[in-house]
Amino acid sequence: MKQVKVAVIGASGYTGQELLRILLRHQGVELVCATSRQYAGQMLEDVFPRFRHVPGADLRFTDSDVPAVAATGAEVAFLALPHGVAAAYARGLVDAGVKVIDLSADFRISDPAVYEEFYDKPHPDLDLLKEAVYGMPEWHGEEIRKARLIASPGCYPTSILLPLIPLLKAGLLETEGIVVCSSSGVSGAGRKADISLLFCECNESVRAYGVPKHRHLSEIEQELGAAAGEKIVISFTPHLVPVNTGICTTTSAKLKPGADPAQIGKTLEGAYKNAPFVRLLGANKCADTKNVTRTNFVDIGWAYDPRTGRIVLMSAEDNVIKGAGGQGVHAFNVLCGFDPTEGLWII
Amino acid sequence: MKQVKVAVIGASGYTGQELLRILLRHQGVELVCATSRQYAGQMLEDVFPRFRHVPGADLRFTDSDVPAVAATGAEVAFLALPHGVAAAYARGLVDAGVKVIDLSADFRISDPAVYEEFYDKPHPDLDLLKEAVYGMPEWHGEEIRKARLIASPGCYPTSILLPLIPLLKAGLLETEGIVVCSSSGVSGAGRKADISLLFCECNESVRAYGVPKHRHLSEIEQELGAAAGEKIVISFTPHLVPVNTGICTTTSAKLKPGADPAQIGKTLEGAYKNAPFVRLLGANKCADTKNVTRTNFVDIGWAYDPRTGRIVLMSAEDNVIKGAGGQGVHAFNVLCGFDPTEGLWII
Amino acid sequence: MKQVKVAVIGASGYTGQELLRILLRHQGVELVCATSRQYAGQMLEDVFPRFRHVPGADLRFTDSDVPAVAATGAEVAFLALPHGVAAAYARGLVDAGVKVIDLSADFRISDPAVYEEFYDKPHPDLDLLKEAVYGMPEWHGEEIRKARLIASPGCYPTSILLPLIPLLKAGLLETEGIVVCSSSGVSGAGRKADISLLFCECNESVRAYGVPKHRHLSEIEQELGAAAGEKIVISFTPHLVPVNTGICTTTSAKLKPGADPAQIGKTLEGAYKNAPFVRLLGANKCADTKNVTRTNFVDIGWAYDPRTGRIVLMSAEDNVIKGAGGQGVHAFNVLCGFDPTEGLWII
Amino acid sequence: MKQVKVAVIGASGYTGQELLRILLRHQGVELVCATSRQYAGQMLEDVFPRFRHVPGADLRFTDSDVPAVAATGAEVAFLALPHGVAAAYARGLVDAGVKVIDLSADFRISDPAVYEEFYDKPHPDLDLLKEAVYGMPEWHGEEIRKARLIASPGCYPTSILLPLIPLLKAGLLETEGIVVCSSSGVSGAGRKADISLLFCECNESVRAYGVPKHRHLSEIEQELGAAAGEKIVISFTPHLVPVNTGICTTTSAKLKPGADPAQIGKTLEGAYKNAPFVRLLGANKCADTKNVTRTNFVDIGWAYDPRTGRIVLMSAEDNVIKGAGGQGVHAFNVLCGFDPTEGLWII
Repeated sequence: MKQVKVAVIGASGYTGQELLRILLRHQGVELVCATSRQYAGQMLEDVFPRFRHVPGADLRFTDSDVPAVAATGAEVAFLALPHGVAAAYARGLVDAGVKVIDLSADFRISDPAVYEEFYDKPHPDLDLLKEAVYGMPEWHGEEIRKARLIASPGCYPTSILLPLIPLLKAGLLETEGIVVCSSSGVSGAGRKADISLLFCECNESVRAYGVPKHRHLSEIEQELGAAAGEKIVISFTPHLVPVNTGICTTTSAKLKPGADPAQIGKTLEGAYKNAPFVRLLGANKCADTKNVTRTNFVDIGWAYDPRTGRIVLMSAEDNVIKGAGGQGVHAFNVLCGFDPTEGLWII
Repeated sequence: MKQVKVAVIGASGYTGQELLRILLRHQGVELVCATSRQYAGQMLEDVFPRFRHVPGADLRFTDSDVPAVAATGAEVAFLALPHGVAAAYARGLVDAGVKVIDLSADFRISDPAVYEEFYDKPHPDLDLLKEAVYGMPEWHGEEIRKARLIASPGCYPTSILLPLIPLLKAGLLETEGIVVCSSSGVSGAGRKADISLLFCECNESVRAYGVPKHRHLSEIEQELGAAAGEKIVISFTPHLVPVNTGICTTTSAKLKPGADPAQIGKTLEGAYKNAPFVRLLGANKCADTKNVTRTNFVDIGWAYDPRTGRIVLMSAEDNVIKGAGGQGVHAFNVLCGFDPTEGLWII
Repeated sequence: MKQVKVAVIGASGYTGQELLRILLRHQGVELVCATSRQYAGQMLEDVFPRFRHVPGADLRFTDSDVPAVAATGAEVAFLALPHGVAAAYARGLVDAGVKVIDLSADFRISDPAVYEEFYDKPHPDLDLLKEAVYGMPEWHGEEIRKARLIASPGCYPTSILLPLIPLLKAGLLETEGIVVCSSSGVSGAGRKADISLLFCECNESVRAYGVPKHRHLSEIEQELGAAAGEKIVISFTPHLVPVNTGICTTTSAKLKPGADPAQIGKTLEGAYKNAPFVRLLGANKCADTKNVTRTNFVDIGWAYDPRTGRIVLMSAEDNVIKGAGGQGVHAFNVLCGFDPTEGLWII
Repeated sequence: MKQVKVAVIGASGYTGQELLRILLRHQGVELVCATSRQYAGQMLEDVFPRFRHVPGADLRFTDSDVPAVAATGAEVAFLALPHGVAAAYARGLVDAGVKVIDLSADFRISDPAVYEEFYDKPHPDLDLLKEAVYGMPEWHGEEIRKARLIASPGCYPTSILLPLIPLLKAGLLETEGIVVCSSSGVSGAGRKADISLLFCECNESVRAYGVPKHRHLSEIEQELGAAAGEKIVISFTPHLVPVNTGICTTTSAKLKPGADPAQIGKTLEGAYKNAPFVRLLGANKCADTKNVTRTNFVDIGWAYDPRTGRIVLMSAEDNVIKGAGGQGVHAFNVLCGFDPTEGLWII
């Protein structure tokens, strides 16, 4: 198998660590650098003892500056950086000829006005934004193949978009009145020293947050609108639940008058029959995060309620894999011409 | 304070244990019997070491037969029994002159046809059903005072009804398109030996279940309909999350055209200004189960989303207290003329 | 009941919050101030929504300076401050005529050389140290009654000392070769923004720490030595486990040649027959933190192993109650002449 | 790579599932059957949705009878059966020419009298017992290579033996007064419908159990005795902690008079320099189960306490991998001549 030189920028967060775990098992990857401002100079295994003795993991965190990364000969760089920080790295790396898979939100919103509405500041790099590709392999494989900059989807959006896109494309759902509730594991909030993320603050706690206008809405509505061919606004409420990883999303949408509920399953099956990581559970089957954690799978179940005329879509994924690092590697495989599942058969 | 003789039938489940904990601290209660088929003859403290050395807790589980319970002189009996099992006890006890607070679903549904639709069998005691009172003290205090049989509300219904009832009564919400997602701790499934409730099956797991027609819908829609003055059907998806106790409910409903979002808060405040256990968090405030577990409080926050015209209501309660045993004792206090908070200032 | 004016200094940590919860239920306490540098000026219920609507809890955090505390008329002050910070407050408050119950380690070690060995600096107030009383009500009631400054025992020491002290006093155990393993919930590490205490770092993790010379050893060995009448050194390994509160301690010690194993139970029963919070589980019974969390009880079981000639002592307590705030209130009750259990019948 | 036909008998418990996950990734394994009495006839992915879409996992549970298993052409069979049930299968399979790796305790104790003392019945197959090999690859590779029947070590024993064996062999430790405390995740108790294993009974609970004479002691003392060249009895207390998988073991043993503490690290390094799955953390380093869960690694740290003259050994492993299925596959690799790490580079 050919070898692609890969850099991971911001490798010490939860997504960064997961990326390293996946890339170290990927047969076509030569990991040339893993950066971390906080741990620069330290061995990976001294910061994260989990990597001790793992083949290929005897590497040292380096500093994150662009010239140094470029000098490693990296052909592709993953950015596992906070929103707002990634854009400048993307610019520098793309200019240096390194293809970029950005796991932050910086290049996901193609309309700068929407970006500004949700992120409270002008977009930092309108030029680069124009060429960024939304990196959902199930729906944007063609663009990913030719991209220099891939904006990898967010964790909540992935769990919401995958069930909804084909149904909206098929015109089965009303575009008004879509209501989504998601529950995420605590890793979704990142690895940062914050009182509200302490064990004793999260354990034995279930809570909504970020209402009524979570930033991910911008990304979700952009892609839903593209699928439906019309502007869509939805009601979305994220929750924090005491698990390490996993997102469980429940979406309620009204079936269009005259639509046949049996089309739900058929449409999903048609859309994903060649999608290796989308597992359709069937009608009246519920998704459980426990079946997808530490994998790149997303599980999707659905149910039609004749009493309300509504469809309930239930999806589960691992937020740091299918919702972040795994999805990024999936896009990387498409970009580089590897088998889409290379490095991702984790069970 | 006067002393009321109280029996707890089915005292060894999670709700039964919680009832015992509350009643043992209640200044006006003389606990005359606690029954358990499984543990009859054993000391409470030998089955549940938590009760060891606790004043008043040196009692022995007895058998559950009605004559024996009646012979203890019990004036009020709490039934913490499975659905379907409670009805016969209620009959016998009421006939023996014992007032009954039934924590099961057996007498919550006033329309026998709805009962049969959701519980798959005819109602077992139509006579008694006629006089049963829905035991939500915030809205049915008057009836509770005069009742012989109180059907204490379910855990999910309590968390859903308390925020919605006043808003529907005030005509602020569209009655179509109400969508509810609830997440419950594992105690909600009861204390029974079932593989799916094992630690390793629930820990690190978040899952929907019971779609699309959970039995509690019958009760929820009955009370919502009564509040709105019209038939209501809603979309309701319950989830299981890895906490011992706690329900976090998120409800999305469309504001009526022309209604002022500011009326949401004002209406809730008006409705609950004298309700000791309803805590209104305010606009754009989220409820967290961690603040209500082991208390009889329900916390309610809300948010208006001008983009969708929808209101999000967020509520949190302890499913075995406010959603079961605590609410039952609250009704007991009303029934017997005690201060409504007696025995319930647990923090 | 008489009313004692009480101040809580450092009321926003896990122990401070627990103290507030207990004191608000205490019939003989008038809470005159709760201080927090971090939250000074804010309402208790705004920082900790759990306290909303709770009778007596509508108070505001104030600043911690000694003159302001003294000016509230406080007769007794609880110090729930970090080690090293408490000593100066103790000095100022005692000088101002306020009796002090210090939950930190600052005054627990009576030998200044031992303090310096374990805390790496000279003791800050040798004068005050001389009059400090070790506040374990089961063994130091007499001194507590007359004290101006009570050094409340640490969480690990409490769980280790209560089973061992009577057996050492009775000369049943070899003083050499005592080995202790304890597992503590994460609240034991305090409420501080530290990466290692994040949910994702503690959940699904069990780990030893602080080997081989945890600071609590100084306190444990001081009290064991006093009980045995000779110097004792022990092997002690603390562990962190993913629960909010609770300490489970297992102690292995060799029975003295010729001693009768049956004396273990008898000696413990004799020692604690009047101790309301010590629950003896019996021979071959194991302690479970789940039975003691949120109570002031400590559960003690034991087993004799004829193969090794060793006794295993198993104890469980809530680290922030019996191991901190609850034990402090117990000492307060003794100090002020209240019933020892006042405010502490929590189940 | 050559292909070995493998059967897994009892594939639906926690260890069985883990075996399947490992074997499906093993390049040299053709999985010919997975049996389960409970689920015979059902597809693996219908019982355990985690296996859906996984390459090679489209198999059906079959019944467990020996002739049917032999008829599949299996060359090696793993027994993931309860103690007492495995022996008869081992007999039948060995007689049918199938090599057996037994993960139960049935053939671990070479002395039938010890077996009877700890398992309360005579050993069921003394003939077969004679040829059984204790399957710890780090110490018994030679015998494993030639075995027909491998008794794979227990989970607790693995975590205790690996650190102790080399130190006892080197004569560094006193053989009297060894004290071990272990904490295990709940999967260690198996996947069985038992009230005491429910989520709400284990969550927020830490408890000792099985004192003073846990069955694993027989196996531990047998191997320690063999290493030391003399009979050894130890004090061992297992605990249950609320994690899915993971064992954290802390061992305290007295250094022999005159022995140099520095020899501890050197001896461990010498013993395990070629052991791919033993990771030595170094002096005063603590093991954390979070670093080894879902891997076949065991992490070992140690500390010398000059105050007591004792060594503390801290080890962490995943109880269902290194403590069960992974260790079994490691032995399988040795038995079949594969690279010892084949299929086991899981991180």
